[in-house]
Amino acid sequence: MEFDYSPKVQAMQARLLAFFDQHIYPNEQRLHAEIEANRRAGNPWLATKLIEELKPLARQAGLWNLFLPKSSRAPEGLSNLEYAPLCEIMGRVWWAAEVFNCSAPDTGNMETLERYGTEAQKDQWLEPLLRGEIRSAFLMTEPAVASSDATNIECSIVRDGDEYVINGVKWWSSGAGDPRCAIYIVMGKTNPEAGRHEQQSMILVPANAPGVKVLRPLTVFGYDDAPHGHMEIELKNVRVPVGNLLLGEGRGFEIAQGRLGPGRIHHCMRSIGAAERALELMCQRAVSRVAFGKTLAQQTVTQERIAEARCMIDQARLLTLKAAYMMDTVGNKVAKAEIAMIKIVAPNMALQVIDWAMQVYGGAGVSGDTPLAMMWAHQRTLRFADGPDEVHRNSLAKLELSRHMKLPTDRVKMPVTRGA
Amino acid sequence: MEFDYSPKVQAMQARLLAFFDQHIYPNEQRLHAEIEANRRAGNPWLATKLIEELKPLARQAGLWNLFLPKSSRAPEGLSNLEYAPLCEIMGRVWWAAEVFNCSAPDTGNMETLERYGTEAQKDQWLEPLLRGEIRSAFLMTEPAVASSDATNIECSIVRDGDEYVINGVKWWSSGAGDPRCAIYIVMGKTNPEAGRHEQQSMILVPANAPGVKVLRPLTVFGYDDAPHGHMEIELKNVRVPVGNLLLGEGRGFEIAQGRLGPGRIHHCMRSIGAAERALELMCQRAVSRVAFGKTLAQQTVTQERIAEARCMIDQARLLTLKAAYMMDTVGNKVAKAEIAMIKIVAPNMALQVIDWAMQVYGGAGVSGDTPLAMMWAHQRTLRFADGPDEVHRNSLAKLELSRHMKLPTDRVKMPVTRGA
Amino acid sequence: MEFDYSPKVQAMQARLLAFFDQHIYPNEQRLHAEIEANRRAGNPWLATKLIEELKPLARQAGLWNLFLPKSSRAPEGLSNLEYAPLCEIMGRVWWAAEVFNCSAPDTGNMETLERYGTEAQKDQWLEPLLRGEIRSAFLMTEPAVASSDATNIECSIVRDGDEYVINGVKWWSSGAGDPRCAIYIVMGKTNPEAGRHEQQSMILVPANAPGVKVLRPLTVFGYDDAPHGHMEIELKNVRVPVGNLLLGEGRGFEIAQGRLGPGRIHHCMRSIGAAERALELMCQRAVSRVAFGKTLAQQTVTQERIAEARCMIDQARLLTLKAAYMMDTVGNKVAKAEIAMIKIVAPNMALQVIDWAMQVYGGAGVSGDTPLAMMWAHQRTLRFADGPDEVHRNSLAKLELSRHMKLPTDRVKMPVTRGA
Amino acid sequence: MEFDYSPKVQAMQARLLAFFDQHIYPNEQRLHAEIEANRRAGNPWLATKLIEELKPLARQAGLWNLFLPKSSRAPEGLSNLEYAPLCEIMGRVWWAAEVFNCSAPDTGNMETLERYGTEAQKDQWLEPLLRGEIRSAFLMTEPAVASSDATNIECSIVRDGDEYVINGVKWWSSGAGDPRCAIYIVMGKTNPEAGRHEQQSMILVPANAPGVKVLRPLTVFGYDDAPHGHMEIELKNVRVPVGNLLLGEGRGFEIAQGRLGPGRIHHCMRSIGAAERALELMCQRAVSRVAFGKTLAQQTVTQERIAEARCMIDQARLLTLKAAYMMDTVGNKVAKAEIAMIKIVAPNMALQVIDWAMQVYGGAGVSGDTPLAMMWAHQRTLRFADGPDEVHRNSLAKLELSRHMKLPTDRVKMPVTRGA
Repeated sequence: MEFDYSPKVQAMQARLLAFFDQHIYPNEQRLHAEIEANRRAGNPWLATKLIEELKPLARQAGLWNLFLPKSSRAPEGLSNLEYAPLCEIMGRVWWAAEVFNCSAPDTGNMETLERYGTEAQKDQWLEPLLRGEIRSAFLMTEPAVASSDATNIECSIVRDGDEYVINGVKWWSSGAGDPRCAIYIVMGKTNPEAGRHEQQSMILVPANAPGVKVLRPLTVFGYDDAPHGHMEIELKNVRVPVGNLLLGEGRGFEIAQGRLGPGRIHHCMRSIGAAERALELMCQRAVSRVAFGKTLAQQTVTQERIAEARCMIDQARLLTLKAAYMMDTVGNKVAKAEIAMIKIVAPNMALQVIDWAMQVYGGAGVSGDTPLAMMWAHQRTLRFADGPDEVHRNSLAKLELSRHMKLPTDRVKMPVTRGA
Repeated sequence: MEFDYSPKVQAMQARLLAFFDQHIYPNEQRLHAEIEANRRAGNPWLATKLIEELKPLARQAGLWNLFLPKSSRAPEGLSNLEYAPLCEIMGRVWWAAEVFNCSAPDTGNMETLERYGTEAQKDQWLEPLLRGEIRSAFLMTEPAVASSDATNIECSIVRDGDEYVINGVKWWSSGAGDPRCAIYIVMGKTNPEAGRHEQQSMILVPANAPGVKVLRPLTVFGYDDAPHGHMEIELKNVRVPVGNLLLGEGRGFEIAQGRLGPGRIHHCMRSIGAAERALELMCQRAVSRVAFGKTLAQQTVTQERIAEARCMIDQARLLTLKAAYMMDTVGNKVAKAEIAMIKIVAPNMALQVIDWAMQVYGGAGVSGDTPLAMMWAHQRTLRFADGPDEVHRNSLAKLELSRHMKLPTDRVKMPVTRGA
Repeated sequence: MEFDYSPKVQAMQARLLAFFDQHIYPNEQRLHAEIEANRRAGNPWLATKLIEELKPLARQAGLWNLFLPKSSRAPEGLSNLEYAPLCEIMGRVWWAAEVFNCSAPDTGNMETLERYGTEAQKDQWLEPLLRGEIRSAFLMTEPAVASSDATNIECSIVRDGDEYVINGVKWWSSGAGDPRCAIYIVMGKTNPEAGRHEQQSMILVPANAPGVKVLRPLTVFGYDDAPHGHMEIELKNVRVPVGNLLLGEGRGFEIAQGRLGPGRIHHCMRSIGAAERALELMCQRAVSRVAFGKTLAQQTVTQERIAEARCMIDQARLLTLKAAYMMDTVGNKVAKAEIAMIKIVAPNMALQVIDWAMQVYGGAGVSGDTPLAMMWAHQRTLRFADGPDEVHRNSLAKLELSRHMKLPTDRVKMPVTRGA
Repeated sequence: MEFDYSPKVQAMQARLLAFFDQHIYPNEQRLHAEIEANRRAGNPWLATKLIEELKPLARQAGLWNLFLPKSSRAPEGLSNLEYAPLCEIMGRVWWAAEVFNCSAPDTGNMETLERYGTEAQKDQWLEPLLRGEIRSAFLMTEPAVASSDATNIECSIVRDGDEYVINGVKWWSSGAGDPRCAIYIVMGKTNPEAGRHEQQSMILVPANAPGVKVLRPLTVFGYDDAPHGHMEIELKNVRVPVGNLLLGEGRGFEIAQGRLGPGRIHHCMRSIGAAERALELMCQRAVSRVAFGKTLAQQTVTQERIAEARCMIDQARLLTLKAAYMMDTVGNKVAKAEIAMIKIVAPNMALQVIDWAMQVYGGAGVSGDTPLAMMWAHQRTLRFADGPDEVHRNSLAKLELSRHMKLPTDRVKMPVTRGA
């Protein structure tokens, strides 16, 4: 047992932090300004110049595709344990991960393609994604049913000769607002009569396929997160070649399971980064703001919150790192309890820390003048994205109870919902 | 002791609920659509046609200016205890109160004018406000200082002959985005050398006075709340006649104290209405949504939250009604502990209930498809508007402790910040 | 709606508080000393001299049997709403209620006899109970089954000629440690084949009946609560005349329902009294204890807790009073939601307030030097006595949900467990 | 970074768990029975035969003095990181640690002697302690002052020729009830005029020195924890040779600082063991208890708590292990933030988990029929033993804030109170 980051990781952390100091923090206001200028000009759904400018710099700095696990196409890939503290840093600014081509849902989609795609699929879609030229979306959740239970999914994928015909309505398709978003991974049912976990399949659908219609952007609290966006999308008699199917009919649930572990841990590391940033902002405000003759930092009520925040963040980080370590050493399947735990713990922790920080800022905290309100809104969605807390808690409890009931733990499934 | 609403109140509740069924709920989507259409057309800062249409209907239904305490200009005015349950109903839909000319900050401003204005001031500003022809704003909070401590305020009001010259920057001036907003009540310092609570004065500033500049709208979790708006406003050498001063130099703190009690209780009653609505929406979803073979309502974890929500709402309502009763019977000053209590309790309660409801809705809960996200954002601001929780808790604790220290309770001040 | 106590109640509160100042508070240490002396002498299961001394004084002061509802045998009885604030005061000291013949489970047993007993049963058992000459116990909960679900009860009551033969093991029979405890009300099954709620009956069993064996006292944390005690009792072929049955075979559940409402509200009022006492003790300590150069009262972290405690107590009191009011005006059955609410709210609230108070006292708080630790232990049992929180929350949620499912609310049963 | 226990530790865990299965769990009831028999016979303050029987077995099994850090007298000593998981196991049963000579306060006292004692002091007191022949106590906290602030301490240590004369009253002197308790380490002031942290000294006082009087045992929620006990002790003109002083006059605070780190982490590891045991008991009950037609384990409300318990325990364990690792690698002083964190986190976590377990057991949970109530009571004291949560939170917050104020972190002191 050992709690220090490896020298390799420490060096990468230093490089990434330096990049933040030089290129990310100084541009926070500029990015918002660029999006708002686009919005005022009539269309916020444009890739921002700023991020496109920064991407080559990140690449030059060796900070590109850090999320990639070691593989034939990524010999320099990192382990989950190595990536985790880097991903955390990226979580400090909501738009930063894309600069390093490490943003959701592209990372999850790239991993899915890498792991389950054919060589043809990889050439066509994985390569431009790895180069950051296109974006992607994951179409899983549906407005009509409780998608926390993946067996509820209604989107149909029906074979018709050399094609599959897809019909359904999806929503919370994050990233589909971006004009560069070229490819969707769609979850649907190829066989509603099969076993509970063999009905689903995943299929690649080009965003410009006839029958695809982006109905509207959804808002998260009042944010539309343009140009990324969370879209509601109709698929009406969309036809794709049979070669677009991933892995095989009836294997959608299996792919979802494989995809979700890393996706979840990435979200969680970013949650920890967001919480660290919030605590930093909270302390900065507390030492500088004076009310009733004292700084807020001198009030024990502020001190209690800062201390609790530090305890919560450090515990969540350790749990996330342990989960990453287990994913690397014993595999996602054995690590499922740890993955469920971090998925429950990290967003709730971040929400509490950010809320305390907002309270110290008063009105500024809920406005656009600090990153806190947007952070909070984003973290709030993580309490049901990739499966609501309640579903993860039930899975985790069943694992715990199974030890006392002499049940095999592999009968407890990880929840499968919107991909990360 | 008696816990039933009076027959008069019950009749008004019935009338108001009927109005909601007929005119408010069916128009919820239409109002959002109208604002969004204005926004797309280039300017959301327009009074909505819908509300202007509904106002005469409310007036005809005898549901107009219900907030008004009995007075010479309002012989039919209601007591706080009578108004509270009506105000609660209005809180079920965020924009409803304006339909009945009962929306903040106009109600607080009207009460301030009624109580502290000269006849000339009332004729000029109170009358059109009571008729719903103009809107108003309250300019208190400043971006540069911790405004939870009113003695921090920096805006200056300097006499120059027959005029006062006003300089300062204010923010969170709610309602100042509305083009009908014609009059501001501004808090500033006429004498920074006077005693801690005698430095401040309040003065009437027409929105169109030279030197007034609305700098920008602030957002609350992504919402700009157009056309109402929360504005940052610069006052640069703004000149108004000396007759615009309210009550007298150095009496700003006193006016603020008088104004805050009713304002706070109105906010709290609306918080309770919002929480009731959220619980209603939560139950409706829980009985209809199926996951893993059961409705969410059948899960004991959902049941626990529904039960806790009911306990929290009912307790908060009773506390608010008691505070209203005491304001009516022994006055705002004696009721200050109760007013502080509801100010702490109601928004926190509502936030918890709304959060549970959002979780049952998943993605829909944070989007614009339910009123929950906007409700939550609004309630979150109430944890520091009119004084942050922390300041109210300190006041309340000092009242409690003073009994054990043989201190006179009237030395504990109510916090004075942004008006309601 | 009106929030003042009636003049009659205010007068009784004053009298009761005066009695506390004169006879209860000054004797707190003496009572503990007497019990400990008995314990050291070999037997703590003796009625205390102190309480027997005080009982005539309480009677003289007109503070006797205050719990009694108006009835033929109690023409001067009080309503629930009138009794509630008096019961609260009694809750300030754990042994005080008995001084006024208002202690559980005797009050619940007396009400049961009054409401459901025959004249002969009343003459034999109710009269000496009302005079405070004997004590009683309620034998409901069983160690072998989850007694939160009354249908689990296994104790059998079998008719044999002119007698019933009773067999079972009961525990948490509070008060059965007292040598004056002469009569038990026993819940058992007369017909295990009947409908779910028609199997149970209640029967009177003299404590000295052959076959009754007190197996042992149970402890609550480390307290045995001698001489009152919480006993485990074996009933082995105990025979009583058929006339000892209450109301009729199969009506045990019905009696339990009738008994539980008032019992619960009494517990809750005492919880509020305990919380008030704890807050008082907390403030007294906070203003007098100095650490790091300040009194604890000057720390905002202490102030937050005092303020939250005040908010919680006042809300819980209002809810309890409203429940009492509804029991008086519309009956226990219609008031079942309110009764469930207070049962959930009051002990949890008291536990939190007492815990904060203990923390301010440090070591003294958990020791016998303050009443806090014993208070806490007692309140902790109330989270499952008379039905665990979880069962009450489920009932309450079902009532709430039934409105949205068009279900009749009278299908939701109140939980029936150990009597109050 | 690596999260597996070393093979050495895993082997010791296995050995210790086997010892528990063979000798500890099967004797849980026997120990209570022995103490109760002693109590009934008139004196519970006797060393139990059971523990004396088991000690040689533990020694034979190589499970003796495991807490010892590597040193000249303990060449086989363990690091904090190695000891932590073993200490956790010991925490599963409240009396188990003594079997392995690893119980507080003896471990802290032995470490103090080892680190700060002279050879003569070690020969006289450390050796018999290491052999488990005598017991010891740490006399720090005083009833008259807030001992969370060590500068409040009033006990005086005055030099008079070749002796020191000690006067004071101490309480919460744990272990001083044991007849084998032979030596006290006493904290007092040798120079009340010196600097804030140079006034205190520590001195060795034999329990049988003239002038030492054990006034009474204190209770913890009704438990007297006999024969260990938490005693109030008067020191009246107690004279000891000058050679009994530890380290030197004015160095008491320094010793306390050195002693507290390991003591705290031991407590915390035991807290984690207690929580694990409680969760295990909770699950066992939940799968076997049926109410309303389902096991408690099937209720999602039970599942939520089990899941939360697992998340909380695992996080607290990781934090404790990291603190242990840092103490080993960078020293207690640099690890002070981590030590403060675990001190806050572990007992609060354990209290929550135990409370949930108690609720699943109902009445059995608060009685002596499960270990839960006693566990809870013990954990509750840890929220102020060795410094109350509030003091640790303030220290931790100041460390956090100091980064934003450019203050040296070594100006933040660890709280010094009752030793572990």
